[in-house]
Amino acid sequence: MPLPPDFLAALANLLPPADLLTEASDCWTYGYDNSKRHAPPEAVAFPREHDQIVSLVCLCNEFHIPITPRGRGTGTTGATVPTHGGLVLSLERMDKILRVDPDNRLLVAQPGATNLAVQQAAAAHGFFWPPDPTSAAVCTIGGNLAYNSAGPRAVKYGTPRENTLGLRAVTGDGRSIRTGVMTTKGVVGYDLTRLIIGSEGTLAIITEAVLKLTPKPAAKRTLQAVYADLDSAARAIAAIMAQPVVPCALEFIDGSAIEMIRSHSRAELPQGAGALLMIEVDGPPTSLEEAVGEIMRAAKVSGCLSVKIATTQAEVEALWATRKALSPALRTIAPKKINEDVVVPVSRIPALIEGLQALGRRHEITIVNFGHAGNGNIHVNLLIDPDDPRQAAAAEHCLQEVFELVLRLEGTLSGEHGVGLVKRDYVALEIDAATLTLMRGIKHQFDPLGLLNADKALPPAAIT
Amino acid sequence: MPLPPDFLAALANLLPPADLLTEASDCWTYGYDNSKRHAPPEAVAFPREHDQIVSLVCLCNEFHIPITPRGRGTGTTGATVPTHGGLVLSLERMDKILRVDPDNRLLVAQPGATNLAVQQAAAAHGFFWPPDPTSAAVCTIGGNLAYNSAGPRAVKYGTPRENTLGLRAVTGDGRSIRTGVMTTKGVVGYDLTRLIIGSEGTLAIITEAVLKLTPKPAAKRTLQAVYADLDSAARAIAAIMAQPVVPCALEFIDGSAIEMIRSHSRAELPQGAGALLMIEVDGPPTSLEEAVGEIMRAAKVSGCLSVKIATTQAEVEALWATRKALSPALRTIAPKKINEDVVVPVSRIPALIEGLQALGRRHEITIVNFGHAGNGNIHVNLLIDPDDPRQAAAAEHCLQEVFELVLRLEGTLSGEHGVGLVKRDYVALEIDAATLTLMRGIKHQFDPLGLLNADKALPPAAIT
Repeated sequence: MPLPPDFLAALANLLPPADLLTEASDCWTYGYDNSKRHAPPEAVAFPREHDQIVSLVCLCNEFHIPITPRGRGTGTTGATVPTHGGLVLSLERMDKILRVDPDNRLLVAQPGATNLAVQQAAAAHGFFWPPDPTSAAVCTIGGNLAYNSAGPRAVKYGTPRENTLGLRAVTGDGRSIRTGVMTTKGVVGYDLTRLIIGSEGTLAIITEAVLKLTPKPAAKRTLQAVYADLDSAARAIAAIMAQPVVPCALEFIDGSAIEMIRSHSRAELPQGAGALLMIEVDGPPTSLEEAVGEIMRAAKVSGCLSVKIATTQAEVEALWATRKALSPALRTIAPKKINEDVVVPVSRIPALIEGLQALGRRHEITIVNFGHAGNGNIHVNLLIDPDDPRQAAAAEHCLQEVFELVLRLEGTLSGEHGVGLVKRDYVALEIDAATLTLMRGIKHQFDPLGLLNADKALPPAAIT
Repeated sequence: MPLPPDFLAALANLLPPADLLTEASDCWTYGYDNSKRHAPPEAVAFPREHDQIVSLVCLCNEFHIPITPRGRGTGTTGATVPTHGGLVLSLERMDKILRVDPDNRLLVAQPGATNLAVQQAAAAHGFFWPPDPTSAAVCTIGGNLAYNSAGPRAVKYGTPRENTLGLRAVTGDGRSIRTGVMTTKGVVGYDLTRLIIGSEGTLAIITEAVLKLTPKPAAKRTLQAVYADLDSAARAIAAIMAQPVVPCALEFIDGSAIEMIRSHSRAELPQGAGALLMIEVDGPPTSLEEAVGEIMRAAKVSGCLSVKIATTQAEVEALWATRKALSPALRTIAPKKINEDVVVPVSRIPALIEGLQALGRRHEITIVNFGHAGNGNIHVNLLIDPDDPRQAAAAEHCLQEVFELVLRLEGTLSGEHGVGLVKRDYVALEIDAATLTLMRGIKHQFDPLGLLNADKALPPAAIT
């Protein structure tokens, strides 16, 4: 639906021409994210400051124009695909780091600053911000907060919810709000900071974030443990997480994934490997040997074929090469694979993996698993061609059963990718109707006209 | 206002006589909390399970009866004082620990379980739950969550918001909800867990909590550092928090407090002490010496008179004796003192302390400061007799200026005590009108009739 001329005229008054796209061909790319779904917006705005966003959102409310906020589109769930058309608010030009305050262990950034830029600014003072998605070099802080994106380090250092102190934001109806504090404690008012984090841009547009910094550990050691089969690796994960030393990464790769790496890269892997763990331990150098010892003791369950410790940077890189070869290999084999990021309690990983193998056999689908095992966050990849109707139908049944399995094991449907469009229809499997109604009521408080990233994150309400 | 006979009859149908109080004299004590404010409820119910709470809340909604949920009444802000009368829901008999799951580092408890009972159940498996209010022996998990109560360990391990995975709860209109997950990651739906934590029982009644456990550190060292004046202690706090080793406690006591301890206890303190820090460092034994060394280097700013390290348990206890002598001494001197728990960014502590001294001089009020310095959470005690009208008026002016000072320093009005009744009228100094309106809108979603702990935590809305 074309935008009303009055709206377009008002839009042109709010932004200089260089910060606005209205030609269909220019707007096209802003209809994608990394889910590869697409819907074209009618206009794309590149605001540079908070007050511009207030004006833009108020204007959209006046004309009932859908708004889709967006970072760099690295999300995998279609959450930034403007399914209703309207205006995309691309925050990539609001990319300033406004303040680095090492004495108070905080950093204030605009939403368009990349995760990498934040890490570099923090590192200059000996700090880091724990969330580390694979796309850190390009993905934005605003996106990280919108999806509560994490990465390997979450097992020790938590997700954005544990590493953000406060926000400045604009609600769906154009009100400016400030949430949280500039301190590590604060109990005045309701916690809107965490409510907005992970809400996938459906409640408010983040315009500034106060990030909590953590001192960089003085030293780190990298280990690779190889197992004869999945079951022994799963038991090792549970054993590692049941003892006091918390690794700063505990990544898991299953046998199918290892085979894939072996045939698509030069990474060296022992024959007969059924599963592999990449483990990192950080801390003060004096206690690192002992910590590594504890981890190794826990890792050496029966079925453990080898544990290697990297002693040089080159060895560290060689060990990680295996993990890094995985995504390109998967993309080569199944460019349209379905990638889910379910989570189960750590002790249920063996049951999850066993269940997934059974489902793969029953539905005749190759399932490849890897992921952040220390959090129980397993990336389940269904290697299918969705353009083949038989495979697509089998995958749909299989996926439903994967989710049912995960929930039976007290897990959750997503650990870091979020819901967006692609998991929306499964949310009601996990969250009961009363709780969903409450969430929709909260959404309505932030965004009475339902213009802000409509129909994402929550399933549509049943007609009553 | 007496309760309607039909309501009382229905109440008696929901609970056995032993779990219900309706005599005014029996109900009287349930009108207090540790703020020493009082308002008597008309009835007190002691539910034992979730479904009873659903029925009770639905009944209250039917008859428009105010509901005040309550743990053990150790809060200091009047948040559990039933100012509108009605029904007090005392959760003390829902005190079961439902599950301890060391493999998944979690514990499930009912709200009436004490903090101590949780710690003991966790300790049996080598774990602890980080929040450690001074009242841990008697205060309940439900209360800890309702107020996001913390304690000294928060500086390293965080508050309940960082240490809770999920909740089961009953909303103000009697709906059963489940929030969060059983895992350390989860991004499906909005984060209602943290929204309810710290909402002071105004949104929902927590009936079950999934607590995240942390492995007990293998070793701990206790230090006491003494300073010639406040300013040097404040600089030491900032220096300690600016280096990588995070202490697990960093407690601060100012000169007036030291004098008080000296005259009311046998704790040994050097002459001329203007301020004192109690510091604890935990971790693996192998790195503890080095960590203590780093902390000592940071603590030894100019003006540091001595740093003592305890080497035996007796010495640890002797060092803590100073800190522990403080509260009894304060109670002796000023039984009705005003105790605020403001927070400022750590680097602003010197400016806060200097400002507080100036305010004390100007208003002729003795102000004694101590608290959790690593979080910038300072307990500011105004030693006045509120029954003396002149002192009461001076304290009111002084308090307003204390809060204005704190907010100028980018701080917050409360770090762990919360708002309740006593800070309600100051909240609008910190939170802007748009954000408060949003919070009230959220409250309305959980509790449409406004029966649940009405008029607590948020200031009443201006008549519009």
